[in-house]
Amino acid sequence: MEDKTQNPQEQPSSNITEISESWPGRAWAHLESVRRASPLIQCITNFVSMDLVANVLLAAGASPAMIHSIHEIPEFTPKTHALYVNIGTLTPDWLPAMKMAAQVANDCNKPWVLDPVAAGASGFRLKACLELLKLRPSVVRGNGSEIMALFKGSSDENSKTDAAGFAFLIFANLFQGVDSLHDSTDAVEAAKSLAQITGSVVAVSGAVDIVTDGQRVVGARNGVAMLQKITATGCSVTALIAAFVAVDPLRPFEATATALSVFGLAAEIGMEMAKGPASLRMHLIDTLHGLDQDIVHRIVNISHM
Amino acid sequence: MEDKTQNPQEQPSSNITEISESWPGRAWAHLESVRRASPLIQCITNFVSMDLVANVLLAAGASPAMIHSIHEIPEFTPKTHALYVNIGTLTPDWLPAMKMAAQVANDCNKPWVLDPVAAGASGFRLKACLELLKLRPSVVRGNGSEIMALFKGSSDENSKTDAAGFAFLIFANLFQGVDSLHDSTDAVEAAKSLAQITGSVVAVSGAVDIVTDGQRVVGARNGVAMLQKITATGCSVTALIAAFVAVDPLRPFEATATALSVFGLAAEIGMEMAKGPASLRMHLIDTLHGLDQDIVHRIVNISHM
Amino acid sequence: MEDKTQNPQEQPSSNITEISESWPGRAWAHLESVRRASPLIQCITNFVSMDLVANVLLAAGASPAMIHSIHEIPEFTPKTHALYVNIGTLTPDWLPAMKMAAQVANDCNKPWVLDPVAAGASGFRLKACLELLKLRPSVVRGNGSEIMALFKGSSDENSKTDAAGFAFLIFANLFQGVDSLHDSTDAVEAAKSLAQITGSVVAVSGAVDIVTDGQRVVGARNGVAMLQKITATGCSVTALIAAFVAVDPLRPFEATATALSVFGLAAEIGMEMAKGPASLRMHLIDTLHGLDQDIVHRIVNISHM
Repeated sequence: MEDKTQNPQEQPSSNITEISESWPGRAWAHLESVRRASPLIQCITNFVSMDLVANVLLAAGASPAMIHSIHEIPEFTPKTHALYVNIGTLTPDWLPAMKMAAQVANDCNKPWVLDPVAAGASGFRLKACLELLKLRPSVVRGNGSEIMALFKGSSDENSKTDAAGFAFLIFANLFQGVDSLHDSTDAVEAAKSLAQITGSVVAVSGAVDIVTDGQRVVGARNGVAMLQKITATGCSVTALIAAFVAVDPLRPFEATATALSVFGLAAEIGMEMAKGPASLRMHLIDTLHGLDQDIVHRIVNISHM
Repeated sequence: MEDKTQNPQEQPSSNITEISESWPGRAWAHLESVRRASPLIQCITNFVSMDLVANVLLAAGASPAMIHSIHEIPEFTPKTHALYVNIGTLTPDWLPAMKMAAQVANDCNKPWVLDPVAAGASGFRLKACLELLKLRPSVVRGNGSEIMALFKGSSDENSKTDAAGFAFLIFANLFQGVDSLHDSTDAVEAAKSLAQITGSVVAVSGAVDIVTDGQRVVGARNGVAMLQKITATGCSVTALIAAFVAVDPLRPFEATATALSVFGLAAEIGMEMAKGPASLRMHLIDTLHGLDQDIVHRIVNISHM
Repeated sequence: MEDKTQNPQEQPSSNITEISESWPGRAWAHLESVRRASPLIQCITNFVSMDLVANVLLAAGASPAMIHSIHEIPEFTPKTHALYVNIGTLTPDWLPAMKMAAQVANDCNKPWVLDPVAAGASGFRLKACLELLKLRPSVVRGNGSEIMALFKGSSDENSKTDAAGFAFLIFANLFQGVDSLHDSTDAVEAAKSLAQITGSVVAVSGAVDIVTDGQRVVGARNGVAMLQKITATGCSVTALIAAFVAVDPLRPFEATATALSVFGLAAEIGMEMAKGPASLRMHLIDTLHGLDQDIVHRIVNISHM
């Protein structure tokens, strides 16, 4: 294989601009580009999701690197192609590494992606998310409750004193990206506003996955309900977004929508063989690894809303 | 989905009292209740088991939340329906969160369940377990050696000075709940005594799983030997106990027995399709997710001893 | 089961010396011995790999113990049969336990095995590896870049000031033991020199796995390319080496070669049933659990180079 890191400033070469502007065409171009460039994705993620996140990235063709020590971030993060930060099992000792890596990514013009797991579960967690949001992630993906909590926290100047209030925004199935309170369509307005406030692309997972840059809004309609019964599928699709953005860093809105759709369609095809959540998990990864252009063109379902 | 946490003090509603008092009837009622109420189970567990624990809880219908920071326990734990504590990869920095969460659970009348992994492996570990036992878990589940170590430690006033002695109680297969030294039937007397000393329901995994509240003793005779070849199956069945106790908090003895039996019968059915430990793990989870009333009624095998 | 730890100083009994000196004969004898003796392998490994490492060890017949607290190492490590150290998700707080456990293993004449994941990714990581190397591991297994980084670091008296230079030796697929820069055959000379400097057996994973004790060199030609698409397969084969060395501690060169070959042939057979990386992972473990003498004799492919 080629050495992908001799020119650490260089993003993987991309022919994305040459491709069809149809959504299925974009989705295939992004996946092909990940397979060809194998972008190095630094993952600072929660303990529950590390295995699935790494395996999903590998199946898609990317190169995961689970490195989270502040002692090597200044040296290592500049060599990566994107950074993925996920606060699922957050304790205070992990936060400095997350913030340092995000800052280094910014300094090096690398995209970085945030998964604000259970953002509204406690004041501690919301505060951490708001601090990370100030470091301008390229993309934020959460469920409806998480995005609502971030929006309220970001828009409220007194968010600190109100933090406890957000704790009542509760979620079920903490590591699935599933929302027990808010259907993702209900969260569209919060997502748009959050995108406008932060400058990040915001994605809301749900029955329909919503992606917005504050102006445009698309819905990705791939996926199956049983993903809710597998831990860390939400974490993993956010990691896949990081890989897609890594190969098309100037178009995070498009890359986010195609990553959500590609993950969802791998689940749809996997579901045809699955007998339950554990076999779905296996078939999803196998399918993601083997996806071909014809399937992507036929099943990707993204449209403006 | 409904918001399960608007009334944090309220346990999931239960129709358990209406059901048949037969063990298969109870087992099905507990499983149905977990599926319907989807209780939120806070898990402070070891690194090895997080993935399997979360997936087993999801497959059973519960909502796992892997949250272990002392900065959010006071705010978060009161909203959960049960707490699960597992000391598998214990270091001193994790113990305060475990103890704080157990205390908060007690203060809020939430059940909590302890898995004392490798309790006898070192004085450090035994001491941690004895401190946790003093916080009165609703249920303790271990293998024979672990329960023997806890019993000796609890009953010995000089347990501190004798702690080193227990280190010679060794285990194999640290994360399986399997006991290399003591058949579970040999540990019945220790379990009964431990239950009497602590007030906890005590379960001992083995060829026959034993459950006792200090007076009553039942044996759950489901399961397959190959579970011993899959890491974290012991951790996972303890998590399932937490989910079952969450929906029937006044009857932890019954809920513990049915959880052990339901997990074991999912393994029995999974074993029919398995070609080895990895496929058994997959089929077990798929089976747990799809269990129906007829199968539960036919295969649950619990009886007084 | 027998108590394997009543005589903590005693290694599992072995009939390895009686067996055929053919490589397939040795491989089968090692596997049989692991199944019979079920050696207790202490694993201080990264978060990503814990699940797969434990399941691979269990499938092979060994007993994994994920214990990493400095508070129990002095008491626990002497009871184990081998120690496995892996620096994948290293932070400074884990290093003292790794070093203490290696020292205790040495003091007790227990073999210990090092996986220097991403050794060249940062000065911090290389320095940690060099400190661990000074504690004389029985075996070091890495990919070509990792072994090259260790060799240069070990042979350079000014390695400290040059550490930053090694950071440019980069890897892809951090947790796979796969090398994007150096084919393993290119790394043979570095491996031989490193073995001579350190006294350790050195293994280099690649299209052909190389094993050397500084004088002898063998190549193990089992395995499949798709292993590169599964996280932690490199970590897991190193754990299997620890189990094989545990039952033949006086012949780490032979045990390392057979462990690499047995893992690789389980992957070859698993690949016949696999549809992608996730099903390969499952079939690999199932196959490893069920391997019989005939298959081992037919497929083991080790030869002097």
